[in-house]
Amino acid sequence: MSDYTPTREDKFSFGLWTVGWQGVDVFGTAVREPLDPVVAVHKLAELGAYGVTFHDNDLFPFGASAAERDQVIARFRKALDETGLVVPMATTNLFAHPIFKDGAFTANDRAVRRFAIRKVMENLDLAAELGAKTYVCWGGREGAESGAAKDVRAALDRMKEAFDILCSYVLDQGYDIRFAIEPKPNEPRGDILLPTIGHALAFIDQLEHPELVGLNPEVGHEEMAGMNFAHGIAQALWHGKLFHVDLNGQNGPRFDQDLRFGAGNLRGAFWTVDVLENGGYDGPRHFDYKPPRTEDMEGVWESARGCMRNYLILREKVRAFRSDPEVQEALRAAKLDELARPTLAAGETYQTLRDEDWPDATIEALAARGMAFERLDQLAMDYLLGVR
Amino acid sequence: MSDYTPTREDKFSFGLWTVGWQGVDVFGTAVREPLDPVVAVHKLAELGAYGVTFHDNDLFPFGASAAERDQVIARFRKALDETGLVVPMATTNLFAHPIFKDGAFTANDRAVRRFAIRKVMENLDLAAELGAKTYVCWGGREGAESGAAKDVRAALDRMKEAFDILCSYVLDQGYDIRFAIEPKPNEPRGDILLPTIGHALAFIDQLEHPELVGLNPEVGHEEMAGMNFAHGIAQALWHGKLFHVDLNGQNGPRFDQDLRFGAGNLRGAFWTVDVLENGGYDGPRHFDYKPPRTEDMEGVWESARGCMRNYLILREKVRAFRSDPEVQEALRAAKLDELARPTLAAGETYQTLRDEDWPDATIEALAARGMAFERLDQLAMDYLLGVR
Amino acid sequence: MSDYTPTREDKFSFGLWTVGWQGVDVFGTAVREPLDPVVAVHKLAELGAYGVTFHDNDLFPFGASAAERDQVIARFRKALDETGLVVPMATTNLFAHPIFKDGAFTANDRAVRRFAIRKVMENLDLAAELGAKTYVCWGGREGAESGAAKDVRAALDRMKEAFDILCSYVLDQGYDIRFAIEPKPNEPRGDILLPTIGHALAFIDQLEHPELVGLNPEVGHEEMAGMNFAHGIAQALWHGKLFHVDLNGQNGPRFDQDLRFGAGNLRGAFWTVDVLENGGYDGPRHFDYKPPRTEDMEGVWESARGCMRNYLILREKVRAFRSDPEVQEALRAAKLDELARPTLAAGETYQTLRDEDWPDATIEALAARGMAFERLDQLAMDYLLGVR
Amino acid sequence: MSDYTPTREDKFSFGLWTVGWQGVDVFGTAVREPLDPVVAVHKLAELGAYGVTFHDNDLFPFGASAAERDQVIARFRKALDETGLVVPMATTNLFAHPIFKDGAFTANDRAVRRFAIRKVMENLDLAAELGAKTYVCWGGREGAESGAAKDVRAALDRMKEAFDILCSYVLDQGYDIRFAIEPKPNEPRGDILLPTIGHALAFIDQLEHPELVGLNPEVGHEEMAGMNFAHGIAQALWHGKLFHVDLNGQNGPRFDQDLRFGAGNLRGAFWTVDVLENGGYDGPRHFDYKPPRTEDMEGVWESARGCMRNYLILREKVRAFRSDPEVQEALRAAKLDELARPTLAAGETYQTLRDEDWPDATIEALAARGMAFERLDQLAMDYLLGVR
Repeated sequence: MSDYTPTREDKFSFGLWTVGWQGVDVFGTAVREPLDPVVAVHKLAELGAYGVTFHDNDLFPFGASAAERDQVIARFRKALDETGLVVPMATTNLFAHPIFKDGAFTANDRAVRRFAIRKVMENLDLAAELGAKTYVCWGGREGAESGAAKDVRAALDRMKEAFDILCSYVLDQGYDIRFAIEPKPNEPRGDILLPTIGHALAFIDQLEHPELVGLNPEVGHEEMAGMNFAHGIAQALWHGKLFHVDLNGQNGPRFDQDLRFGAGNLRGAFWTVDVLENGGYDGPRHFDYKPPRTEDMEGVWESARGCMRNYLILREKVRAFRSDPEVQEALRAAKLDELARPTLAAGETYQTLRDEDWPDATIEALAARGMAFERLDQLAMDYLLGVR
Repeated sequence: MSDYTPTREDKFSFGLWTVGWQGVDVFGTAVREPLDPVVAVHKLAELGAYGVTFHDNDLFPFGASAAERDQVIARFRKALDETGLVVPMATTNLFAHPIFKDGAFTANDRAVRRFAIRKVMENLDLAAELGAKTYVCWGGREGAESGAAKDVRAALDRMKEAFDILCSYVLDQGYDIRFAIEPKPNEPRGDILLPTIGHALAFIDQLEHPELVGLNPEVGHEEMAGMNFAHGIAQALWHGKLFHVDLNGQNGPRFDQDLRFGAGNLRGAFWTVDVLENGGYDGPRHFDYKPPRTEDMEGVWESARGCMRNYLILREKVRAFRSDPEVQEALRAAKLDELARPTLAAGETYQTLRDEDWPDATIEALAARGMAFERLDQLAMDYLLGVR
Repeated sequence: MSDYTPTREDKFSFGLWTVGWQGVDVFGTAVREPLDPVVAVHKLAELGAYGVTFHDNDLFPFGASAAERDQVIARFRKALDETGLVVPMATTNLFAHPIFKDGAFTANDRAVRRFAIRKVMENLDLAAELGAKTYVCWGGREGAESGAAKDVRAALDRMKEAFDILCSYVLDQGYDIRFAIEPKPNEPRGDILLPTIGHALAFIDQLEHPELVGLNPEVGHEEMAGMNFAHGIAQALWHGKLFHVDLNGQNGPRFDQDLRFGAGNLRGAFWTVDVLENGGYDGPRHFDYKPPRTEDMEGVWESARGCMRNYLILREKVRAFRSDPEVQEALRAAKLDELARPTLAAGETYQTLRDEDWPDATIEALAARGMAFERLDQLAMDYLLGVR
Repeated sequence: MSDYTPTREDKFSFGLWTVGWQGVDVFGTAVREPLDPVVAVHKLAELGAYGVTFHDNDLFPFGASAAERDQVIARFRKALDETGLVVPMATTNLFAHPIFKDGAFTANDRAVRRFAIRKVMENLDLAAELGAKTYVCWGGREGAESGAAKDVRAALDRMKEAFDILCSYVLDQGYDIRFAIEPKPNEPRGDILLPTIGHALAFIDQLEHPELVGLNPEVGHEEMAGMNFAHGIAQALWHGKLFHVDLNGQNGPRFDQDLRFGAGNLRGAFWTVDVLENGGYDGPRHFDYKPPRTEDMEGVWESARGCMRNYLILREKVRAFRSDPEVQEALRAAKLDELARPTLAAGETYQTLRDEDWPDATIEALAARGMAFERLDQLAMDYLLGVR
């Protein structure tokens, strides 16, 4: 067994807003002091992360003057230089300020939409400057609590308009940046637009530059809708759209828990790592979670450590699982190899199938065959539990 | 007030399997006798439906001989002729027989996939013969209970292959038929592929003939994932993909309840009818529900009556709501008109936005503006409750 | 139809924290100015409420000096006097301050528990002074995010200890006050102790003074667990424990939405009012909701008006429903009268049943009987929709 | 590491209906042949189980003649004798036959209630004869799909009446049997009475012989309501009411999945075993699950093996976790020892607390203390994953 100490090659990244979360929620005030981004950068580097990500207003307050902004960016950049941490992704805070209370790109108020797009452009400049290759868009306030408040089709027109504008901007500036939409079903709005991986994938196909836009799915967001996250990112990969990923933990449909990765649905985490490691994804392993309010700063760093540790443990397990000859035999017994084969052989057409004869005995034999999935799943369980 | 008696113009249709459900569930046996499709057709016509829909095995049993099949189809067709009922949609039972226990189009077993596609082609011939314009595909067994049992990307390849084959078949036969995929998140499988409207919309874009394939969303299926159904079908309409719709009732994330339309989430039903009536959908209003096991046949017909009645009541309400000048004023106060306007004016580009100046006072004024959604929603509530 | 204008006799009350909610959530800052409790009292009186309720820190800040406290109480009392509003209930804020981050009565930290009980005693004095008859205990932070962090049995011991202490206090002071526990399944903690009506009812039976402790169930809290709220309060009434009630709206398992009453599950609201009006409950109809962040103060008052209006509309409907002879006949057809009759007749014992003979034909006849529930439910639906 | 081979001392038991489930669900027919109870008994014994449990109609069909009944019981008893398997628990099928479509103890139809109680008495005789000490009551059909169909308070009266009758019967016959109620929130009914552990605990307190009635909670049933199962059984133990337990797996709010133990919420399973092993429970570890429809009989036995294996693995882990000195230190750091101490010291009263002085600095210091839960939980995670 390795000691599960992360290295830069593991590509672990954290949002400034994660370790910096002060614990304000609907029912309570801050439990921790503000965390200086410079301190965060140094500590994350020390813990083994390779990257740090941010919303504009994680660095400087909403409405900061140019001077104030420049100063914090200079300090931040210095910390990056000192530590060698990279900024693989950046994003915009389009949800905290009251101006965004009805959304940003799809706010009913047209002026708000203009302000929002402008805010993104401004931060895209900074993102490009800091070398970010992915720009995440979480539309946390794009939604509604009641039926007439939002005309969904008009709102999707506006959402498309915003992305089309922003793609033009990025192309014209020559930025090497792609957008990644982060779906979420609800909270803080009653229902949010583009609520799942699927809805966002479909939306992207309607854009002027679909090649510039992909997804940043988050474990907890999909699980809040009862979705299987590993299935979701597998479909995103199938569409060539898994641009980034947010790893954390959740216990099914309830409020957004943002637990450290591994906590919550651990079996799901195993299959998530399996898809990421074996599915061709090579972007950052980004943790978007919230250290519980019960923790002081020591607990915060403990939880950050835990995210990475759990990923490394699971990575070791999925590799061992996939390379075990007995597992491979079990996969064949469960006919995974047949699933990979086209249903029609070369040269066959629908007519071949149409003409096929199906004696009752053949049907009965097929119906009686067991799929041997329980054995296969128990092998995975044994790996997960570390008893094999 | 009208008396809410349905007519053919209302385009109400029912699946044979709905009023014919005998009540078998995981925990119990049949509570009602089999319902002769001919009786169902006559009764549905009498109640005011215009159409009836079916799975192949609603008419004839799995494995029926050609003679048996011909006989029941002749009887069925006669009933249609006698009543004037049409068959706007047909579908295939790819879930009841044990051969489909691991799926049909995405069964790991390649032979099962071939059998499944053949079964669909056979029933497409009958669907075309009976004049169906929509062919629904519900992949109820396409999924998995455990992580290694299904390689999702391979399964999506197989799913695509099946639809590509079937589209070729329909085109070559010259059938005037389009496919409609019915998403569902889970049950009877632990997790089903294409779990929501969004996932299915995205999938369709990858097909060889995307124009031939759209959606048949079901109220309860989306609500099982906590999705807002009206939002979902609005997005489907935005993509031009609402080919058919399954109306019923559900009480949030739990087992598939298939309550009569209106039962379950009534506020959601109001907005569903609003989107259907005002969103350009002109297909059948199809009820896919299950009369509770507590009912005898009288109760079954009562529930069928209730589906149509509730739709008509809600239709009257959404029409009144939308045409009320006070509502229209409230919609303007909530800035729905602004949402319909592009964010950029003619001639504007991102540069216009980039150059815009935002004094603090302007931002503060925008942030302070109330959206007046509660008043708007209470107006809708008053209509729904019949007190306005 | 009445005009649904509330009067004092309707016993509507609101928490100061409801109309005074400034909109702070996990993702955003305040959208509304602080609301002066005096203004709230006057406005609620004007709108037709009869009562106002409060947490200690809705009136004065945590850690307020005695002088500060006295001053705000004096102003508040004056407003009550001027308007005639009563204070039927009071409660303690044991969740906002960081000291309560791991709970109050069940905080692992013993000092926190002592502080919490003291805080309740202090506010009980004020509650008694202002005439409150019910003292609500919502243990929002009593819970855990992870398994080892809380020993549930030890925590229940501490919870019992706290209630036993507080009951002694109330008895010794001679206060005419009863406690009402407000269950909630989760949020802000991952899992909260006493998560449903049932768990709290069971807990009360273990107290030294169970007669002094009952429930304050909240619509949304139960519905977050997929519970049927009307069933829940009916069971609470059955135990003689419905001391108070929190009315609001929710859309199933997701974050705590706190919508205005009627929004969310409207069919559920109809049956909730039915149980309250016909089940012998005569306490306040208390609204515990949050006006959405999209609203300015006008919208806040609109939503408060909506809560009361919807209750009055539904009350009218349930009364009409219950007094309709056709409904009464439908109830008999559904054998509700038989449910009200004991299963054993006078003089019968288990032996009577044991000796009973059950010919197959009798069993078959019973099995074939329909319950006629769909017709009954459609009658209720017609009343709810206002078409009967 | 042990080899996780179960022995009789582990007290594993299975329902005949679990390994014997043929796979009938709402959407599909049987996928497996009927399993002879005698074969089941022999196979379960061979796999290492110590007990087998049954519904009356798992052994003989509904309506079986006395002769038929005697014959199957004789064969069953012989198998028990041959294998040494015990019958720790028995139960009644009050849900499969159409006569129970509206419930059994709370059916609106009084005749059905009488029939149901009689059916239980008959099977209690058999249970006593076979040595069962626990008699489970799962009221799967006790509930409703619509609001007026069930008067919950009347239904609870009838439920109480049934248990009072049955307790008298058991007492009078001198049976050494206690009842265990199995709560479930929904499915197959829309909402089931006594939906959670809490509701059932509260109900029991109202019975004439509460000492004879406890609980048989099921993992999946509680998790369908988003409840924390370990918390639930901890509360049941606190009330002295954990008479029996049903172990299986579930993925949150959705249909009743009945996965093998360990599948679904694995972290929850760890804490479940922790509570069972360290909480004083010494009854059977009973598996109530359904081998997926994808499996043939080999897969069925594989899944039965998996249930026991996973329990043994987790038992080893929770023991190691609890005895690790570093964990014990982490528990102290998280102040679990303080939670176990009464809040009042000997001799203290509420007055001691009332008089206590709380300087701001003390409060601030308490508020700033971290609870160190993340470290503690990561230690548990390390054990669960087998890396410590």
